[in-house]
Amino acid sequence: MDLGLRLGIDDLFAAYAECIDEDRLEDWPDFFVEQCRYVVTSRSSHEAGLQHGVIYAASRGMLIDRITALRQANIFEPHRYRHIVGPIRIEQIDATVAQVRSNFIAVRIMHDGEMGLFAAGRYLDRIALTSQPYRFIERLVVLDSQKIDTLLVIPL
Amino acid sequence: MDLGLRLGIDDLFAAYAECIDEDRLEDWPDFFVEQCRYVVTSRSSHEAGLQHGVIYAASRGMLIDRITALRQANIFEPHRYRHIVGPIRIEQIDATVAQVRSNFIAVRIMHDGEMGLFAAGRYLDRIALTSQPYRFIERLVVLDSQKIDTLLVIPL
Amino acid sequence: MDLGLRLGIDDLFAAYAECIDEDRLEDWPDFFVEQCRYVVTSRSSHEAGLQHGVIYAASRGMLIDRITALRQANIFEPHRYRHIVGPIRIEQIDATVAQVRSNFIAVRIMHDGEMGLFAAGRYLDRIALTSQPYRFIERLVVLDSQKIDTLLVIPL
Repeated sequence: MDLGLRLGIDDLFAAYAECIDEDRLEDWPDFFVEQCRYVVTSRSSHEAGLQHGVIYAASRGMLIDRITALRQANIFEPHRYRHIVGPIRIEQIDATVAQVRSNFIAVRIMHDGEMGLFAAGRYLDRIALTSQPYRFIERLVVLDSQKIDTLLVIPL
Repeated sequence: MDLGLRLGIDDLFAAYAECIDEDRLEDWPDFFVEQCRYVVTSRSSHEAGLQHGVIYAASRGMLIDRITALRQANIFEPHRYRHIVGPIRIEQIDATVAQVRSNFIAVRIMHDGEMGLFAAGRYLDRIALTSQPYRFIERLVVLDSQKIDTLLVIPL
Repeated sequence: MDLGLRLGIDDLFAAYAECIDEDRLEDWPDFFVEQCRYVVTSRSSHEAGLQHGVIYAASRGMLIDRITALRQANIFEPHRYRHIVGPIRIEQIDATVAQVRSNFIAVRIMHDGEMGLFAAGRYLDRIALTSQPYRFIERLVVLDSQKIDTLLVIPL
């Protein structure tokens, strides 16, 4: 495996987290290919083989719709995340797709400055390597806790 | 230092965390060479030069015994960890052994979904480079807090 | 971009965190060039374009003074941090300077073992590449929460 590929994946992960954490959510769908899949689910649902999740999108258009709705609704208390992602493990790779996984946590910061551990879990990803910058074909966010559901507005 | 070596160490760290966090504890001893040393200790004990710790194992066999006991006893409330490891610092390296250190935190997720910061500290490692995948000759887990002892069942 | 450069930056980040977390604060100013800038600020101040911060230093000498004062005053309850830094994103790079950013959290551990999430935020850095080891020309620490101010004694 060559260095460029590893660095390209690192960059994708860092840019993805920065996009969300800096509230540039309109740019978020662009981290995915057109025919993508983005799912946030809990470990228990994932292990039970359930295909849907707390958040489910099956195309980039659905991701765009989600952000539009989030910006318009605005019924939730303003907050931000700070993502920390651990070492990225490359499971499988060929000329066009990399399958990788990583651990992450997200700290949530409320508008008044209150801060707490919000989510912990894994990213299970399939990444398209055929163009630069790399994009997600699939990003499966498996949360360790099932307690998070109703609070989840911003993507992880 | 070549790239393959750095990536091999990264992979070892990611695979180690995944093994524990995904509850594949029976695979955990295989991350160590036969004549290994695995110690979980607190910073104050470590700085005082104490050789033993909250958990102490001096061979892979002792690691296997620990997991067997943990699975049979089953007297603790079910829980999982999620490890996040920071940048890995290579302190010293020769043809056969790398000495590295890293910061980590472990989030603990209880069966009911309660989640909290459980441990923070450092890994002080000696890694055998003579076969693939790399294995730990020594993994010294130095916890920042001494308050953790009685709760520690699953390895870190 | 070559591997040596990327690894040099990784090493700088790991060594910087270790220096602070292991309470070798007297070595901390040496991570900066002589004519440096070190600022700890909040996101809201940063976004408002304010140049100063909770901590502000415009030379290595000011960093040394800060550590001297911290060691002499000693009016705060003893504590330590544990930093976890996520993937490092290289924004721009030329022959002499790299501009990079990263997410971090700091856990704080009090003398009695109490432990909690203390800070989350971003490092916005400019790094001098002209000598080894690399040093910071500027390290801007942008905290996600503005609630931290009065507790901040040890640098982040």
